Amino acid sequence: MSRRTKIYEGKAKILYEGPEPGTLIQYFKDDATAFNAEKKGTINGKGVINNRISEHVFTRLAHIGIPTHFIRRLNMREQLIRQVEIIPLEVVLRNVAAGSISKRLGIEEGDPLVSEEHIACFNWATNEEMHDISSMAIRINDFLCGMFAAIDIRLVDFKLEFGRLYDGDYSRVILADEISPDGCRLWDMTTGEKLDKDRFRRDLGGEEEAYREVARRLGLLNAEDNGPGEVFDLSHARSRLRGPPPLKK
Amino acid sequence: MSRRTKIYEGKAKILYEGPEPGTLIQYFKDDATAFNAEKKGTINGKGVINNRISEHVFTRLAHIGIPTHFIRRLNMREQLIRQVEIIPLEVVLRNVAAGSISKRLGIEEGDPLVSEEHIACFNWATNEEMHDISSMAIRINDFLCGMFAAIDIRLVDFKLEFGRLYDGDYSRVILADEISPDGCRLWDMTTGEKLDKDRFRRDLGGEEEAYREVARRLGLLNAEDNGPGEVFDLSHARSRLRGPPPLKK
Repeated sequence: MSRRTKIYEGKAKILYEGPEPGTLIQYFKDDATAFNAEKKGTINGKGVINNRISEHVFTRLAHIGIPTHFIRRLNMREQLIRQVEIIPLEVVLRNVAAGSISKRLGIEEGDPLVSEEHIACFNWATNEEMHDISSMAIRINDFLCGMFAAIDIRLVDFKLEFGRLYDGDYSRVILADEISPDGCRLWDMTTGEKLDKDRFRRDLGGEEEAYREVARRLGLLNAEDNGPGEVFDLSHARSRLRGPPPLKK
Repeated sequence: MSRRTKIYEGKAKILYEGPEPGTLIQYFKDDATAFNAEKKGTINGKGVINNRISEHVFTRLAHIGIPTHFIRRLNMREQLIRQVEIIPLEVVLRNVAAGSISKRLGIEEGDPLVSEEHIACFNWATNEEMHDISSMAIRINDFLCGMFAAIDIRLVDFKLEFGRLYDGDYSRVILADEISPDGCRLWDMTTGEKLDKDRFRRDLGGEEEAYREVARRLGLLNAEDNGPGEVFDLSHARSRLRGPPPLKK
C-alpha cells in the first residue's frame, strides 16, 4: 500500500490527494496554535470534534443553497472535499465587538486589514467574486446566528474561506475550509462562558470540554459521552471510495 | 375597572388598546380555523404556546437587527406590541414544495397570488417598502432555517406580515403579527412528522402535543411539563405598565 500524497499541511489540518480527480481528503489535527503560531499546543480530540461539527454545519448550509466544498465525512478525522483554488482572503464576520481594541476600531490587534481596492489591485478576487463572497457570508451569518441561538450560544464572530471551483474555463465561488470552534467565537448566552479557541489562546483551560459542549448541543454527542472517540462510526465510505487507506496515526 | 377597548379580533388573536399611545396588547386565543374559516376548532393551550414561541422568535430576530413590533410579553396570553399600520400582504416563504399542486406550481390550491404590479397598482406597498419586505423576509428565512435546523426541524414554509411604523410623516416597515406553528409548516427532520397547524387542518390529531414539542425543543418548556399552564411566570410587567388588568377569561 502506497502512502498518500500530501498536498498541504496547515496549523490544524492536512490536505491529501483524493481518490478521484478534483477531490481532496481534509484531515483534522488536534494541534492548536495562536498569535501567528507563537503559541503552540494540542487540544485532545479537537480534530475529531471539528471534523464532525464542520460536516454538520456545511451540510446544513448546503440545505439552504450555499455551495460548499464538502462531499462527505470519511472517518473520525477525515472528510472528502472538492478541490478548489483557495481565494487568499480571510473573511471575518463580527456580530459583537470582542476585545478592547475591537470595541474601538472593530478590529483586533495585528489584524491585517484589506480594502476592496487592495483585493482588486492584487487580483486576489474579481469584483464579481467579492459580490458572491459578501452575499454568501451574510446569508451564512444569519443562518449560523439562528443555529447557535437555538442552542443558547451567541455567535460573536467567525472566519470563512472561499475557493474557486473550476469547470473548464468557468469557475464559481464556493465555501471552503471548515467552520468549527477553531475559527468562531462562541459564547454561552446565559453565562457568557467562552466555548471556542479563546480558551486555549487565553489559557483559560477546559478547551476540550468546551469543544465537546458545542458538539453536544448541536446534537452530535450524547450528554453521557466522556470523549469523542466512542461516538463516531467508522463504517463509512472508505470501501465505496476505493481510495488509499487512512493514514496510520 | 373599565374594560379595555378591543381594536380588532381575528381568527387566532385579539388586539386591545395598549397602556400608552402607539402600543397595543396582542392576546393569543386557542381558536383555530382552516380553509378560510370553513373548519373551526380549538387547540388547548395553543395561545399560551404561540405567545411564548413568538416572543422567543421575535426577540432573537431583533438580535440580528430585524425590527419588529414586539415590546415585551405581559402574561401567559398577552404581549405588548407597537401599533403599526398593517401592510395588507401575506408574505409566504417556501423552502420545500408541500402538497401536489405546490409541487407543480409552487402554490397551493386557492392561494390568492399577487404580483409586484398588483401591489404597486393598488397602493398596498411602495416599491421601497417591497424592497425592505423582501430583504427582511430573506434574512428571516435564513435565520429561522438555522434556528429550526438546530432542533431537528425543517422549516418548510411560513407566513409573515409587516406593518408601517409611523414617526411623524416618516414611516418604516417592521415585522408584525406572530411567528408560530399556526403560520409555519414545521416537519421533524428525522421522522417527517408534522409539528404545526396541518395536524388540525388535516385531522391528524395530536396538535396540542405538536405545538408543545416545538416549544420544548426551543427550550421554552421542560421535557417533563405536561401542559403549558405551569411554566409561564405571571410576575411580569402588569404593574410596570399601569394599564388595565388582563381580560377575564
